[in-house]
Amino acid sequence: MKSLIVGQSGGPTSVINGSLAGVYYGAKKSGFDKVYGMLNGIEGLLEDRIIDLDEYFLDANQLELLKRTPSSFLGSCRFKLGNFQENEEVYEKVFHILDKHQIDSMIYIGGNDSMDTVESLSDYAELKKKKQNFIGVPKTIDNDLPITDHCPGFGSACKYIATTLREVIRDNNCYGSTKPTVVVVEIMGRHAGWLTASSALAKDESSDGVDAIYLPEIPFNIDTFVKETEALLKKKPSIVIAVSEGIKTENNQFICELKDSNLIVDSFGHKELAGCAEILCKILKEKLGVKTRAITLSTLQRSAAHLASKTDLEEAFQCGKKGAELAYRGKTGKMIYMERISNKPYKIRYKVFDDIHKIANIEKKIPLEWIDVDHNSVKTELIDYLKPLIQGEVKQIYKNGLPQHIYLNK
Amino acid sequence: MKSLIVGQSGGPTSVINGSLAGVYYGAKKSGFDKVYGMLNGIEGLLEDRIIDLDEYFLDANQLELLKRTPSSFLGSCRFKLGNFQENEEVYEKVFHILDKHQIDSMIYIGGNDSMDTVESLSDYAELKKKKQNFIGVPKTIDNDLPITDHCPGFGSACKYIATTLREVIRDNNCYGSTKPTVVVVEIMGRHAGWLTASSALAKDESSDGVDAIYLPEIPFNIDTFVKETEALLKKKPSIVIAVSEGIKTENNQFICELKDSNLIVDSFGHKELAGCAEILCKILKEKLGVKTRAITLSTLQRSAAHLASKTDLEEAFQCGKKGAELAYRGKTGKMIYMERISNKPYKIRYKVFDDIHKIANIEKKIPLEWIDVDHNSVKTELIDYLKPLIQGEVKQIYKNGLPQHIYLNK
Repeated sequence: MKSLIVGQSGGPTSVINGSLAGVYYGAKKSGFDKVYGMLNGIEGLLEDRIIDLDEYFLDANQLELLKRTPSSFLGSCRFKLGNFQENEEVYEKVFHILDKHQIDSMIYIGGNDSMDTVESLSDYAELKKKKQNFIGVPKTIDNDLPITDHCPGFGSACKYIATTLREVIRDNNCYGSTKPTVVVVEIMGRHAGWLTASSALAKDESSDGVDAIYLPEIPFNIDTFVKETEALLKKKPSIVIAVSEGIKTENNQFICELKDSNLIVDSFGHKELAGCAEILCKILKEKLGVKTRAITLSTLQRSAAHLASKTDLEEAFQCGKKGAELAYRGKTGKMIYMERISNKPYKIRYKVFDDIHKIANIEKKIPLEWIDVDHNSVKTELIDYLKPLIQGEVKQIYKNGLPQHIYLNK
Repeated sequence: MKSLIVGQSGGPTSVINGSLAGVYYGAKKSGFDKVYGMLNGIEGLLEDRIIDLDEYFLDANQLELLKRTPSSFLGSCRFKLGNFQENEEVYEKVFHILDKHQIDSMIYIGGNDSMDTVESLSDYAELKKKKQNFIGVPKTIDNDLPITDHCPGFGSACKYIATTLREVIRDNNCYGSTKPTVVVVEIMGRHAGWLTASSALAKDESSDGVDAIYLPEIPFNIDTFVKETEALLKKKPSIVIAVSEGIKTENNQFICELKDSNLIVDSFGHKELAGCAEILCKILKEKLGVKTRAITLSTLQRSAAHLASKTDLEEAFQCGKKGAELAYRGKTGKMIYMERISNKPYKIRYKVFDDIHKIANIEKKIPLEWIDVDHNSVKTELIDYLKPLIQGEVKQIYKNGLPQHIYLNK
């Protein structure tokens, strides 16, 4: 009798449930007798909130529905275990609950913080000679995990961003020179510009694409930005600019934090604005007198399962499945990752990363040589890297005109 | 030898090109020898910017691509002809250009303002014994045109809103009680709440749906709103609220104007609205100390052709086709509209409205008896009205992972 428990952590993605489906499928195939889910990650585990996944997924149709359901089916949390020397009680409680349910293995699907949890529990288990083993399965729309070529969740967010921008560009074009407008689209990614860079994919023979891309990897200068936008407006009347929420000045100050300074003049004393797109629009309106529109893709970009990339979903599933197989073999403190073998044809290999210490809490940024700083654009290498990740469409299951999801009956 | 010219006007929709495709198809079938398009509506016509649509659409595949392309293929404008007594020169110029190209009929696809243009030109032609006739084809995501049961463009926007809200609700649910959050989603609709009401469609057995809906038809009270949200938070930790951009206080003041009295006014004298979700989030954070997130669906809701409703696209096409047939029969000053015969099964009939004077510049709001004021919700009658409009999916034409559009080579 062998049992596994799986949890999801951190921000949701469109395909994090694809990995959950993969874990369940792989665990059953490998030989686990029981597969449990912890609700709201490690936080729910500590409260003994555990469900038996057989009750949900023995029916293969339900597993297909799970793959098409965005956001964490099991719920998520943002919880740091902390150092075990200072927090041993919490560690012991985790193992107490795992023992109580006779659980042998745990898989945690998440980003940097979640890998930190896997690392801490695995280290503690080895030190204290606990029987349980711990495996990490990567997930993040931000694509900022090191080691892995890219992260499950990222490709679908890219597909959403490129599709949406193509539609926004067309929308903005429709008035032509009768009403020049600058649209600034704010995209997630506080420190790494991967998601914002994916806006470059909107361009092809049927779309001009975005007119400028501003990434957090390159210091942002407001005066230069205004001049560059002015130059764009001389060439065409409808401009769409993609900016990362994380762009910063040369002095390392986030643009979205400028709202607190006197740089932004609000004649009515209401200084608190939302994001950097809105601040940039306000500046453009003031300096260039042009009509502007700020669009913030917000949580839509991480939950648009209706536009999931088939490639991404399949990879998310495989990462989960391989994780379960690894868990069954008793390995611990390891993370599944993807290595890219070739771009044309696109080929990846699933591998096991042994030293999870090297993954936790490190952020992978875009290599500077992939950025075309002079043209506020990205280089072919980056496009070639991104393109395979958005390929293929997931056939949605529609009912009454809307995509169906699977629901947790708490 | 008979020729027709077609134009698009006002804000774009996901299926306004479906109507253009219908006009082209219907014109050719009816017997028009030439079908022209005016670029940027009446404004482009006055500048003689005209294209021959045969160059684009003789190939049926291109016509299919057109149906899947959001925003106005021909470009749009916001141009008011004004009273002919004061502006006869402009009127004469329109007819001069129509005569120059030997054009017999004109079709204008648009909303209230565009029907005003059709009415004015038709009246002038009759008065001055011009040979041309003018037909209106309805279009607006706002669904605020009178006479017609609903408007092409509306159903697809509803489908986008309901799908997106279902995803946003799941995203917001994922942290559960570990992080109570109120998301306020701002939806278009200046005076009529049709689009915001469609957020009610998100609810079914796989989704809780939105927790409250605030429509412009009902006066909005900030204190009541805060109390109602507080009550919701006592029942569950993750709240999603849909608000119309046009909600107003009892004193008839737009909520979005509360932050800044210095309003931008567009060329029709409409005040530009933005940011009521943000203002409400700010208030909730201040009064309840809860985490909030403002999401504005912006132009995404009117250009998301990748989520177009098949019913809506088909109706948009049919309205265009019937318009062309009517034009061929020499009728003038009329608009195509839809009458609903039954809900189950859903059946509509395409009809001709004779007196376009009764359409132009009148806004149709939600009947008050369809609104459940006490529960900030909508009644079954409204759901039954909306449901048929989002049925069916349009098979997209994907290339390299992204939906393809047709491009105008200017």
